[in-house]
Parts: sequence; structure tokens; C-alpha cells
Amino acid sequence: MSTKEIGVGLLGLGVIGGQVARVIKERAEVLYEQAGIPIILRKVKVLPVDLERPQAQEMDQSLLTTDDNEFFDTPGLDIVIELIGGEHPALEYQKRALKTGKHVVSANKEVIAKHGSELMLLAAEQNLSLRFEAAVGGGIPLIAPFQRDLIVNRIKGIYAIINGTTNYILSRMSREGLDFSDALVQAQKMGYAEANPKNDIEGIDAAYKLAILTTLAFQSQVKPSQIYHEGISKLTNSDFQYADELGFAIKLLAIAKQSNSEIEARVHPAFIPKDSFLAKVDGVYNAVQVDGDLTGQVTFLGKGAGPLPTSSAVAADVVATARGIVSGQSNFHWQPKQTKAVKPMAEITTRYYIRMTVTDQPGVLAQIAHILGNHNISIASVIQKESDADAQTAEIVIMTHPSLEKAIQQAFIEFHSLAMVREINNFVRVEA
Amino acid sequence: MSTKEIGVGLLGLGVIGGQVARVIKERAEVLYEQAGIPIILRKVKVLPVDLERPQAQEMDQSLLTTDDNEFFDTPGLDIVIELIGGEHPALEYQKRALKTGKHVVSANKEVIAKHGSELMLLAAEQNLSLRFEAAVGGGIPLIAPFQRDLIVNRIKGIYAIINGTTNYILSRMSREGLDFSDALVQAQKMGYAEANPKNDIEGIDAAYKLAILTTLAFQSQVKPSQIYHEGISKLTNSDFQYADELGFAIKLLAIAKQSNSEIEARVHPAFIPKDSFLAKVDGVYNAVQVDGDLTGQVTFLGKGAGPLPTSSAVAADVVATARGIVSGQSNFHWQPKQTKAVKPMAEITTRYYIRMTVTDQPGVLAQIAHILGNHNISIASVIQKESDADAQTAEIVIMTHPSLEKAIQQAFIEFHSLAMVREINNFVRVEA
Repeated sequence: MSTKEIGVGLLGLGVIGGQVARVIKERAEVLYEQAGIPIILRKVKVLPVDLERPQAQEMDQSLLTTDDNEFFDTPGLDIVIELIGGEHPALEYQKRALKTGKHVVSANKEVIAKHGSELMLLAAEQNLSLRFEAAVGGGIPLIAPFQRDLIVNRIKGIYAIINGTTNYILSRMSREGLDFSDALVQAQKMGYAEANPKNDIEGIDAAYKLAILTTLAFQSQVKPSQIYHEGISKLTNSDFQYADELGFAIKLLAIAKQSNSEIEARVHPAFIPKDSFLAKVDGVYNAVQVDGDLTGQVTFLGKGAGPLPTSSAVAADVVATARGIVSGQSNFHWQPKQTKAVKPMAEITTRYYIRMTVTDQPGVLAQIAHILGNHNISIASVIQKESDADAQTAEIVIMTHPSLEKAIQQAFIEFHSLAMVREINNFVRVEA
Repeated sequence: MSTKEIGVGLLGLGVIGGQVARVIKERAEVLYEQAGIPIILRKVKVLPVDLERPQAQEMDQSLLTTDDNEFFDTPGLDIVIELIGGEHPALEYQKRALKTGKHVVSANKEVIAKHGSELMLLAAEQNLSLRFEAAVGGGIPLIAPFQRDLIVNRIKGIYAIINGTTNYILSRMSREGLDFSDALVQAQKMGYAEANPKNDIEGIDAAYKLAILTTLAFQSQVKPSQIYHEGISKLTNSDFQYADELGFAIKLLAIAKQSNSEIEARVHPAFIPKDSFLAKVDGVYNAVQVDGDLTGQVTFLGKGAGPLPTSSAVAADVVATARGIVSGQSNFHWQPKQTKAVKPMAEITTRYYIRMTVTDQPGVLAQIAHILGNHNISIASVIQKESDADAQTAEIVIMTHPSLEKAIQQAFIEFHSLAMVREINNFVRVEA
């Protein structure tokens, strides 16, 4: 090819965008050395409000534009880096880039999770590449290992902590006995949680990331809408205390398994054994454990977010894209050929922790056990603590053997009809 | 290109070779799908003794040869997989493959560590590739992440547990209080240690692997002969007990750091904080912690050896090589441009744990402290346990603040001249 340098355009100049621009400028020599060709930042599309921000002020002002057409019409634009986040207009920008002959590098988990397959097709038609290492796990190499190193394995399962905000909150709750709401405020103060934390604490962000990993690992399209997600706001101190007593930690886990012709994919709080590796992943760290039939368990651990780790992943994608341009090899495989069914949540089997408040009188446990037995739910252990004399109630905690989710849900409905059961305080799935 | 399929030749048919042959045959469809071209096993070079082994018996006999020329002259041989291990004749085989126009995939840590740079040059001259993902960490993706994902980082340090045999022995010693020699016998019984375990227990195997990782990470040639290595056979139960009491675990650690213009690279037993991730890596698991200036700490964890994990890494390299052949992009970057100095062991600075037996009489500690002070070695803590009344000796354990290795070694010489110091039982470096 005749190109003498690779021109890069940047969409978005927030903290991540600012850091990526800095890496492209300050590490130009490393990028050149690794890509075999100079990589030059040619244009940055910003919002008018961004123009006042320090990362805009520190840049060569001629690189900045607020105009879409000016950005996309920049001569010599080979790669577009999309860092604006959210579904729209990021999706439209990525499409426009691909349709006008530009390779795309994206850190956008939502767009890739929801539209990755369609975008990959568009890229393939155009003989362009679309890379998104930064979309999952920040600076932890994850996408490339699935694309390259684990490729011959049949992946049996993925168990991942892929949301730093919730892991930080759960770590604070576990270590310091903070309430959920206090821990959330702390996370917001530290800049680990957004003012509107819904996407993180409800498991939506983790579901986006799991959709991407699942699609890669099982080579079958899994959409975020097919992934059950449940957040962490129901967890209380009491749950952490029982978990500890029973030998478990509580984590927001993203789980995907392949069983026969079906895929299981879900995000929810889970009890995991205290001595497991994932139990030891604290604070804003992320960890992804992959169970390959050849490799056995392989675990990737690191900081899952932040401008520096994200800029590392984005820059690696830019180098890989540039190498591809130089060699004429621009394809990047992500064409799930099959579409396996995703198992409905009601059909999953796992163990359960159930905590409930009951009337402190004889026969309560017998009635509860009777209902569980009717639904083929076998009890592994029961804890009944001292009762509350004033309220005349007691707290019962039940750990079940592996049971069907729909059986548990049906048992809960029947518990509600028991006068003796005041409240089902919480239930958490147990992954051992 | 006009090739319709990729022909593979296999050098060596031990347990690893047998498993790789099985993967190429049984997962032909996956390999085809991922490489975009069929991958066919065309010839296997075995030793006469291997012909009787089950993995040879189960194969199409026409694929087997004991003759070098027949192997290398096999028509349509695009990739040679070298799995015989050891320096010779593996090195000569790799060279012959490259000189006769064949890409090489190798799991041979010794050849890559000692001759990687020379072989890479030869490969580059021939426009061929040389891949070796399986040489370090078995099925854990390590080489590719350094080549791709972490490429823009300045790597500050590597802290790795990369020898399963010693980690298994240390885990048994730590958990069950076994002696080194008993734990070694157990490891041999389990098949985790060889009849002649020297390479593993003396840290030589780990030094080969560290040489490869260091060269990749710092892009400067580091030879195994430049890496200090010290084994685990001096460790006793007593060391594990003190370590535990002081809040540490003991691991055989492979450490590489970049400081100014020098590289530090060493393999030795080390005290590491009990609550660190590496401390929790038990049994035959391997873990590599990489400290990048952008990513922060990233850790890779998994099974570091065995036929299944190794076959996963080898097959991934074969697919990557085949993709390269299809696209005409066969280069794989490993051309260290610089040659940084490797810091002499005497110049390193770390903390030390020192355990010694002294005469049980007043003034001993004062004399020891005096010598340490003379060498600018500052004491962080001292433990003196009950003395042995019969022998009239006491055991003293000293933890130092960061000190120069040569100062410690000089102090030891002076300790030996003290009548009161009966023996320096052991000393272990402390990495926090």
C-alpha cells in the first residue's frame, strides 16, 4: 500500500478521549515502532461545551471541530475512534465511519453489545475492521484472547466481575459493614459511581459486557435483552454477615455457560466461596474467569475502567488496525454463525440462599420445609438466630441444594400465602 | 495466495505432541473455521522408541517417520511444530525449518530463551513467522498480550509464579508442614516433578521463562545466563512458620523490573504479603502479574503446564500462523532494538528475612545489629524465640528494611566470623 501514515479521528473528548489523544501524541514513537507506520491524530469531534475543558484547551485548536461533516470529510482519515459512549448517536457515527471507508475502534460496550453483529457485517462488506478491546474490562486483555488464544477451546463457562462500581460498593459493604446507600454515596464521592448510577447498580452495564463476551466465547449472538440482570440494591448487612458465617463472599457476578444446545447468561448478586479467586477481587478491580475445555480455568484480572487503562486498550486496537492496514489484512473475525437459544431464567438450576422473617412459633420450619419439598427443593442447611422478642418474629436462613429457579419462585409465592411468613427479606443465588 | 490448505509437521510425539496431533485431527473443523483454510497434519517425526507409545499407535502410520530428511522434505509442509524440548537438536530443527521456508510454532522455552532473538532474525529474513505462546504459562495467554494488548505501555515490572512444580511443592510445605524432600517425592508421584527435578527446583526453568517475558516486555534482549536464579531446596518448615507469623507466604518468584536504563531480572524464593493475589496462587497454577504504566496491575492466572493447556496454546499459534499465510502477513514482532544492561545481583535493593542460630548469651543481638548498622542495613523487626537449653542456642529472625544485596552478603561474611553466630540458617528476599 502507498499510504505513508495512518490518520486517526477521535469522536469525543471527555476524560477518556483526552487521555487517548495524549497517548497518540506523547507515545507517537512507540506507536510508529509497533505499527510500522506513523499514526497521526487528524481531527477531534467535540461538543460545543467540551471546547472549554482542559483536554480541549491543551490541544492544537485546528484539530477540533464541532461539525460532523467536517470531521468525517477530513482528508486522510483511516481510523475513527469512537469514545462518546451511549447508544445514540454513537451507533450512527460508527456506521457513517464504516460506510465512508474508515476502520473503527470503539470503547462503547452498549453499541457493541446491541449492534456488534450488524456493525461487524458492515465492516466485513467494506473490508474494514471494527475493534473494541476497551469495551470490556478496561486495560485487561480480554477480547483479543478470545479471538486468538482460546480459539480452539470449547468454552464451558465464564464467571466475571465486570462492573467496578458495584464491586467497589460491595467491597465497602463487606469490609466496613456500610449500608448499600452509604456505600453508594462513598462510591459517588470517589468518582466510581455516576450521579445516576442505575446502569451500574442494576447490572445493566455488566449485562452489556457479558453479551459481548458470551457472543465471542460461544460464537453465537447473545443480545443484552436476552440476559437476565438483577442489581445489588436489595443486599443488606445481614446478608453479608450470613454469607461470611457460611463461608461465602457476595459479588455481582456475570455468568455465561454453554449447556448442550443452549446458552445460559445472567447477571446477579451471587454467593461465591470465600476462598475462590473471584472472592478476593476487591474494589474497582475486574476479573474474568474463563473455563476452556483445554486450558482449564484461566483468569484475567485488572482495573476495569478509568482513562489510563482504557487508553491502553484503545491504543492497542489502533496499532492492530494500523498493522492490518499496512499488511492489507483488515478482517477481524466476529461472525457468529449459529444462533443458540438462550435458556429462560426460570429454567436455570443453582443453589439458593433465602433469608426470611417468620412468626416465632412452633411448626414454622415444618411448613416452610413442606412447601420446599413439594417443589423438589432440597434444604442443605438452616440457620435460625435468636428471635426478636418484641416483634415475636425470628429470622430463618435456608441454603438449598441445586434447584430450579421456577420452583424457587413458585415456593416464594406459596410462602407469601403462609400467615407465619412475615417477609422474604432476600434471596441470593449461590455459585460454587 | 494459491494454497488450498496448510500442511503441518510435528516434531516430537510425547504426551504433548500426542495431544497436539489429536487437536489438529479432532478439531479440524474449528481450525478451518478460524484460520479460513483447512489445516492438515502431514508428517510426524518421532524417535524409534516412540513408535510403541499409544499416541503413535493411534495415528495413521503413514504420517510417522523417524527420518529427519523425510520429515523436512515432506511436500506441502507450511508449518513445523517443534515439541521435543531441550536445547539440542530442537534448535537445529527450528533453524532447518526456517531455512527451508517453513513457519515455526514452538513450545520450547529453553531454545526461545537462549536463541529466540537469533531465530526471530532468521525468520524475518525468510519472511516467515516464529510463534511460541506455549513456551510460557501453558494455556495462559501471555505472549500475545505482550505483543498486542500491552504494547503501548511502559512495563514497570513483572512478578510471576511460572513454575508449577515448585509452586506445588511450596503449597504442600505451607499447607501440610511437609519437608522439602517429602513434598518433592509427592510432586514426583503426582507427575508434577521429573525424576531429575533440578531444572525446576533450582529455578532454571523459571529463568528461561522470565528471560522470554522480560525480553518481550522491555524489548531488550535478556538471556537466561543474565538472570540470577536460586532454588527452593533450602527452605524449611521453620521458614514457613515465621513467614506465616509475619504475614507472608513464600513463593518462587520470577521478578523483572525496569529502572532507569537498567533491567533487573531474578528468580528466587520470596516472602510476599499473605493477602496479595500471588500468595493465593496454589498448586500447579501459574500467575503473571504485569505492571503497566497505563493499565496498572494486570494479572494472568491459569494452569501453566500439561498436555491440554499446552495444546490450546500451540493450536492458537498454528491458527494465527495460518491466518498470516492466508493474508500474506507473516511477520511477528520480536526484534529488541536496544540492549539494556542487566543489573548485577549485588546491586539490587530489597528487604530481607534472615534466620540464624546464635549462642544464647547476652550481647548477641547487639553485635549482630552493630554489623548490620555498619553496612547501612536497617532492622525492621526481630523475633527471638525460646532458646534450646541443651544446645545453649537461640534462634533469631530479623526482617530488614530495604537494603543492598551486597551489603547483606558482606554482613553475612562478618557474621560468620562472630563466635556467637552458630549458623545463618536461611535468608529470603521480601517483596512487598
